[in-house]
Amino acid sequence: MAFIKNCWYAAVWLADLPERAPFGRIVAGERMVFWRIGEDKVAALTDACPHRKAPLSLGVVQDGQVACRYHGLGFAPDGKCVTNPHGPLQESLAIRAYPVEVRDGMVWVWTGRADKADPALIPEEVLAFTRTLPVTAYVTGYLHARAGHKLFEDNLLDPGHADFLHPFLGGGAMTRATRTFVKSENSLRLTMIKDAWAYPPMFRPGMRDPDDVADNWAEVLWNPNGAVLIRIGATSVGRPREQGVITWTAHIFTPESETTTHYLYASGRNYNMDDADYNAALAIGLRASFVNEDVAMLEGQQAVLGDADLLDTKPHLFPMDNASVQARRLFDSLVAADQADWMVPN
Amino acid sequence: MAFIKNCWYAAVWLADLPERAPFGRIVAGERMVFWRIGEDKVAALTDACPHRKAPLSLGVVQDGQVACRYHGLGFAPDGKCVTNPHGPLQESLAIRAYPVEVRDGMVWVWTGRADKADPALIPEEVLAFTRTLPVTAYVTGYLHARAGHKLFEDNLLDPGHADFLHPFLGGGAMTRATRTFVKSENSLRLTMIKDAWAYPPMFRPGMRDPDDVADNWAEVLWNPNGAVLIRIGATSVGRPREQGVITWTAHIFTPESETTTHYLYASGRNYNMDDADYNAALAIGLRASFVNEDVAMLEGQQAVLGDADLLDTKPHLFPMDNASVQARRLFDSLVAADQADWMVPN
Amino acid sequence: MAFIKNCWYAAVWLADLPERAPFGRIVAGERMVFWRIGEDKVAALTDACPHRKAPLSLGVVQDGQVACRYHGLGFAPDGKCVTNPHGPLQESLAIRAYPVEVRDGMVWVWTGRADKADPALIPEEVLAFTRTLPVTAYVTGYLHARAGHKLFEDNLLDPGHADFLHPFLGGGAMTRATRTFVKSENSLRLTMIKDAWAYPPMFRPGMRDPDDVADNWAEVLWNPNGAVLIRIGATSVGRPREQGVITWTAHIFTPESETTTHYLYASGRNYNMDDADYNAALAIGLRASFVNEDVAMLEGQQAVLGDADLLDTKPHLFPMDNASVQARRLFDSLVAADQADWMVPN
Repeated sequence: MAFIKNCWYAAVWLADLPERAPFGRIVAGERMVFWRIGEDKVAALTDACPHRKAPLSLGVVQDGQVACRYHGLGFAPDGKCVTNPHGPLQESLAIRAYPVEVRDGMVWVWTGRADKADPALIPEEVLAFTRTLPVTAYVTGYLHARAGHKLFEDNLLDPGHADFLHPFLGGGAMTRATRTFVKSENSLRLTMIKDAWAYPPMFRPGMRDPDDVADNWAEVLWNPNGAVLIRIGATSVGRPREQGVITWTAHIFTPESETTTHYLYASGRNYNMDDADYNAALAIGLRASFVNEDVAMLEGQQAVLGDADLLDTKPHLFPMDNASVQARRLFDSLVAADQADWMVPN
Repeated sequence: MAFIKNCWYAAVWLADLPERAPFGRIVAGERMVFWRIGEDKVAALTDACPHRKAPLSLGVVQDGQVACRYHGLGFAPDGKCVTNPHGPLQESLAIRAYPVEVRDGMVWVWTGRADKADPALIPEEVLAFTRTLPVTAYVTGYLHARAGHKLFEDNLLDPGHADFLHPFLGGGAMTRATRTFVKSENSLRLTMIKDAWAYPPMFRPGMRDPDDVADNWAEVLWNPNGAVLIRIGATSVGRPREQGVITWTAHIFTPESETTTHYLYASGRNYNMDDADYNAALAIGLRASFVNEDVAMLEGQQAVLGDADLLDTKPHLFPMDNASVQARRLFDSLVAADQADWMVPN
Repeated sequence: MAFIKNCWYAAVWLADLPERAPFGRIVAGERMVFWRIGEDKVAALTDACPHRKAPLSLGVVQDGQVACRYHGLGFAPDGKCVTNPHGPLQESLAIRAYPVEVRDGMVWVWTGRADKADPALIPEEVLAFTRTLPVTAYVTGYLHARAGHKLFEDNLLDPGHADFLHPFLGGGAMTRATRTFVKSENSLRLTMIKDAWAYPPMFRPGMRDPDDVADNWAEVLWNPNGAVLIRIGATSVGRPREQGVITWTAHIFTPESETTTHYLYASGRNYNMDDADYNAALAIGLRASFVNEDVAMLEGQQAVLGDADLLDTKPHLFPMDNASVQARRLFDSLVAADQADWMVPN
């Protein structure tokens, strides 16, 4: 399996972590146990007791430690065994601790060399919109999907798919948009613009002049850890973007395995911002769309592909696929550089 | 996997195809999408969009095309891309089209070289009985089974199994019958006769003299595409067959994989022909028998065999197995000849 | 797969065998069919008809034979075909018969050389306690588990795990106990003693002086076929064991595969012996404990291990693991000796 190791992965929404129990999740092929160690503080260890490999995620949390429920060994957030009912504490009982940062309600975990775990490398821009919006102006969620993270990232690096897969959202603008993208060392930004076109259907109910033509735009920020921010907006022709509708959606695709993905999302907007009922309805609608449209389609795509990589199947690509192909190339080069570098300390 | 390619397979009952949506099925290891293109007309393509391999069976049908719901590419029944919202139409966007024929309510698909797809090769005799019977004199159905097509074909090439597996049908005649079979280039016909024996139990309720002795007979027509017709009858001793009861049952075993099978069946009779209630009850009874008796037993047999071929496990065969062994040999020789010939055009 | 062949395995509780039908179970990787052939008498054969490998466990029992429901071949308890509707009886139609003994309500089956199937090798001590107890003083049960038998045996060879995994049972005594064990040619006996300590929680409600200190003890008898007897008791300080509470629990772990296990258990006690209501409640509580505590933990452990053997994963072992490591070594040496000796007669 080829994952980037020196990398922050979104593991779980902080709100989804139990208050007083450990939580197991496989991130980029590694079994991890997470638990709360204070307000907005979380620890992560390898999810296997060094004694007999029982999962610590079946254990208990007490005194800031996670304790194995099989024989009572307790581990501190740094992985050191600090409770051993069966003998002396020994250095060799330590297990691997993963650097963890909690930002914007998300638990980020670093799977590579601990000495390189610089919190500044967290792609914070992806969830930054949630900091300033009222809680009634955004929703969050989690889905598990039996399709690989690359298929999900491809999907978002081509916002034009909305015109076909999401009739509620797509109005034809994205398919016709002018695309430009900028690739940096470790991210890719795609901009799509279609001026003087109908408003996307989902925006119309809230517009004063829903039948007006609008300047439509989308911006996608892709990060190689699977964290993608897509901003979509429309504004009356010639007006600044800030005067129109804007939505921010973070789609974070954390690999579980090569072909299964943790899909963590957040979606905010600059209209109906104080309408809790609208927000609740949107939470249901968005989730239904992700489940029935994106996940269903990409799981079907994965079923067709089996274990094959899409690019090895001679797909017939279009110019609109350039961004996703470039992102895949960047990903591959980062994996190659990364594999020369990371180590598993424990 | 060893399938015959130059071959018509029964894919799906026409009645089971959605009116306005595509339908996906794996036939002989190949993913196919089917859709209606007119009364009694059906198209079949590879079930993967050439763009990014999304399943077309998750798409939509419009204007006689099947359109991918991911990015809107539309394909004509000949596999050519005729709608491309993202660029010019190109020859290279074509996908493989499978020759399709609809006969007797069954959608037959050809998996080999298109230039050899002669409709005259469809084993029409298997379903011909449905043409002349009133609709209240036959039933049809579909089952999916986790056992290979060969095990199902073995099963029918030995009608004697009914005496043990189907107590409602078997009355001991078939086990004691005189067997003869004739093998042709691409089929096998087995005849079984047991004169002066009790009527099979299922026929008795409808007989004037149910306790009479009868001349019992069965004829099995096996085709190497898994389409089997079994006619079973009984008539008063010495009388012509036409004066007795006759049943026709088409058991069509289309391989999905080596060890899973699409089981399509139709069963008709020459008595109680206008009795819709009897027909409805028989539909339920037959299906229960196939599910609880044949499929249960053959799935058990497949579980014992695992991936092994029955003939590689040193089975202890009896003379009654001759027909099925001969059918398997014919199948193997046809596969060998076929593999030298077929090609995948796309 | 490495199983001991010359070995009696507990296959099924006699009470769980159908009165008049065959019963299929995979024991140590071998598919077997069991059926009753008299009061407290059971036969076992390979669960595959020699004709076409249909499972005999889908068949019927008649006249002391098991008959295949596919084509009616009947087999005697010695594996000989004694009914063949399709031809003469032949020696070559015989299938493998497994020696079977019924003891203490358990059906034991021998998977090795028939000439070595000495009933004296059944580890009878494990269930002997059920012979003298009234039926209201013990319970029995069966569970299927997706974890290997060795993990279950490890578990019991360290009774200290109860202090952590079974709060209802563990009171800290076992973790602090003095351990001694004796390894014989084909078994291992572990003794644990902790004098002057609190009674285990589950015993207290029935004690006259529940808050008294007690002499706590446990004895584990491990047999290489997975049959384990664990006796746990506590008595007022300095008093003979017979004056205190004693429980006997047989945990019998019959391998299905390397990573799945048939868990057959029986648990008796020397208190509340005539209380049927207590006994019924205990049956539910014990089963809940096995399912939610042991099986859940060991299935988690197996999931972490995958197909790896625990000892190949560099576990950090403690002195309390000595008994289980010694049992594993004895097992491995017995497998090696056994493999040089056993044969499959059929």
